[in-house]
Amino acid sequence: MHPTIGDACFVPIDLYRLASLLTFFTIRLPGNPHMPSDQSPLPQGFRTSGLHCGIKSDPDTLDLALFVSDRPCAAAGVFTQNRVCGAPVKVSRERVPRATCRAVIINSGNANACTGAQGLKDARWMTDEIAAGLGCSADDVLVCSTGVIGHPLPREALAGGLPAAVDRLAATPDAFTDAARGMMTTDTIVKQSVRQADFDGTTVTISGAAKGAAMIAPNMATMLAVIMADAPLSPDEADRMLRHAIDRSFNCISVDGHMSTSDTVILLAGGTADSGPLGVGNQQQLQTMIDEVAIDLAQAIIRDAEGAAHFITIDVHGLRSAEQASRIARAVADSPLVKTAIAGADPNWGRIVSAVGYADVDLQEEEISLAINGTTIYRAGSPLVYDERAVSDQMRTDRDVHIDIEIAQDGFAAVRFWTSDLTAEYVRLNAEYTT
Amino acid sequence: MHPTIGDACFVPIDLYRLASLLTFFTIRLPGNPHMPSDQSPLPQGFRTSGLHCGIKSDPDTLDLALFVSDRPCAAAGVFTQNRVCGAPVKVSRERVPRATCRAVIINSGNANACTGAQGLKDARWMTDEIAAGLGCSADDVLVCSTGVIGHPLPREALAGGLPAAVDRLAATPDAFTDAARGMMTTDTIVKQSVRQADFDGTTVTISGAAKGAAMIAPNMATMLAVIMADAPLSPDEADRMLRHAIDRSFNCISVDGHMSTSDTVILLAGGTADSGPLGVGNQQQLQTMIDEVAIDLAQAIIRDAEGAAHFITIDVHGLRSAEQASRIARAVADSPLVKTAIAGADPNWGRIVSAVGYADVDLQEEEISLAINGTTIYRAGSPLVYDERAVSDQMRTDRDVHIDIEIAQDGFAAVRFWTSDLTAEYVRLNAEYTT
Repeated sequence: MHPTIGDACFVPIDLYRLASLLTFFTIRLPGNPHMPSDQSPLPQGFRTSGLHCGIKSDPDTLDLALFVSDRPCAAAGVFTQNRVCGAPVKVSRERVPRATCRAVIINSGNANACTGAQGLKDARWMTDEIAAGLGCSADDVLVCSTGVIGHPLPREALAGGLPAAVDRLAATPDAFTDAARGMMTTDTIVKQSVRQADFDGTTVTISGAAKGAAMIAPNMATMLAVIMADAPLSPDEADRMLRHAIDRSFNCISVDGHMSTSDTVILLAGGTADSGPLGVGNQQQLQTMIDEVAIDLAQAIIRDAEGAAHFITIDVHGLRSAEQASRIARAVADSPLVKTAIAGADPNWGRIVSAVGYADVDLQEEEISLAINGTTIYRAGSPLVYDERAVSDQMRTDRDVHIDIEIAQDGFAAVRFWTSDLTAEYVRLNAEYTT
Repeated sequence: MHPTIGDACFVPIDLYRLASLLTFFTIRLPGNPHMPSDQSPLPQGFRTSGLHCGIKSDPDTLDLALFVSDRPCAAAGVFTQNRVCGAPVKVSRERVPRATCRAVIINSGNANACTGAQGLKDARWMTDEIAAGLGCSADDVLVCSTGVIGHPLPREALAGGLPAAVDRLAATPDAFTDAARGMMTTDTIVKQSVRQADFDGTTVTISGAAKGAAMIAPNMATMLAVIMADAPLSPDEADRMLRHAIDRSFNCISVDGHMSTSDTVILLAGGTADSGPLGVGNQQQLQTMIDEVAIDLAQAIIRDAEGAAHFITIDVHGLRSAEQASRIARAVADSPLVKTAIAGADPNWGRIVSAVGYADVDLQEEEISLAINGTTIYRAGSPLVYDERAVSDQMRTDRDVHIDIEIAQDGFAAVRFWTSDLTAEYVRLNAEYTT
């Protein structure tokens, strides 16, 4: 099993390549290339906040995040497919897609999962409190939780934190970063992404924040993301665009193949006062922007994967079915033998080719070719003579590894997948006694 | 994907429990409870040999193994499902099931995989050489290879070794142990198992040898086993009995979920001069003996898993479908988070329960109960209060861990699965530069 979020089908469009051909006027912030520096990083009509309310013991670590649309907006959500899922997933899943969403409230430090009937009450209570502060219906508030599982939610900490989160809402860079921090558990880097473009004279902004760094300590971590857009979408359009983006981003990453009980990605999309419906060309451009933000955030999760020393990009092409290409990419990405070989800077084509062979895709050995970092080392079923030492040295010094797998079946399906290597540090982090 | 060998369907009979109720007069050898000490450990009419012929550089390490039936016997084989498979798999797969098999020749140190047309020629040549020595048809000889892939088979070493292997054939304990050693790559323990029983006044012996210790260095290891029986079976009966045994043994183990290109299990069954056809009761007892030998060998592979500190038994019961129970057992066994938690002596029920949840089996959270080493720590979807420290201390001192998962769906399907934990030592062994 793989950590697939939601059940959207995969459409074989090579959008990440299309995306690189488009230009947006993205404002860059030092250290975070897609973050605006001197203006609000949020779409018009959105405000956020983040703070420490006491779920975590360290007072300097934020544990609450709030994302608000000042007007009712379209909301779509895609959730974990795990049969064991947290109470917030059950509550939020019932409320999307919807046309009148106002907020997403997220706490970290406690996943509110495996907490029974009380957990459901607690998750609904969180949305009641935010709704009271915003003056809206509780059904218009979505909720996510991440952290330890099996422990009741600490209501006393949240009772003070939830009104404070409403009070501190702002549209500043700091308020956005605080919200991104409030979601974090074992993450070591803040994960944000912004894209802007001109749509017929109106600036459209897509801003997203995410958390996730493998499913590790304290009991399990998880992957959460909120993406906001100041573009007029119906709930169905928002749902379709979110699934399109997830299929090219969060469903193309794997750290350890372990699907969390709490994975959630939410898209909030609201039109501004002067915005009319989007034309077809603008819808396409908006989709590309949402895809790019989702890919940025997904890549940031892999770059932050605990204990990882390499960021691995896997391209699979030449098949007629993107679903089959995806299956091969996942088999390679989830193989502990491939991941440990890359940790050891070993261009071990035997492990990669054998993972291709067991991916349950109908293919012949002679159809497989493989390149690592641009050097073809296996072609049409046979190993080539190549400079092993040079490829290894490059893997030892460069954090990024590119694995290109061609299956010569004259197809045009192409899938790009991202994963991390498997190091002794990953084992150390996950073997520490945490319960 | 999982390292399933062959495509036999799973029959939901709880045979390993039945087996424990039967008694065989097994002769025990110090250090190896199922090895006879003062008589031939081989079935009547079988001889074996093992030697160093020069494929491996260390002259003290054996690299060739031969298993011979003095008369034509029934042979069945089950092979890797990997689409990328070694030349010996292609050659042997065409030759079973058959009624007139004479031998299995195995070399270690070179897998003869990804070696193209020359590899096929080399694999057939190995069987030609053995057939010449035994005076039989090459089609009556099966072949297996394990070791590095992508390198041509060293014919010069084998040219001397193959006749020598025929010359040294014997029915002694040493000859059997040499054959088991000749198959080994990164194995640290010799893997043999013997069962004997009285069938209407005739002693029937089942003897098996295996190699495997995770798919690790130098390029990939693999799992091979040869099981011999002095009981009259037709090729179809041998095939059915072998698949039955594999479904309860080699298909119930996982070290790292990476399916090899060379996995092979072969059963040779020949009647002795005075044996008639087996009655139904004797067939059932024979099946149980073959299952037990296969389970012994499969468990030995897990106990020898490189870098492993814990031997983990996973029981799943309460479902109506053994296939679903097996899917849950595999999801838990293959989760790096479960395996690292056990390495750290952490009874982390959250990771186990969430792996149950993503196994793609239709179930409710409230149907799941979990016990570790006899202590129930999660019942009907809720965590229990239990002595965490005591369970952890036990996991720290005892190499064996038992995970019992009940899915309360009033079914009688039961599956037992074995795996190892995931340690920093596994990563170290597999991250060493080996190509």
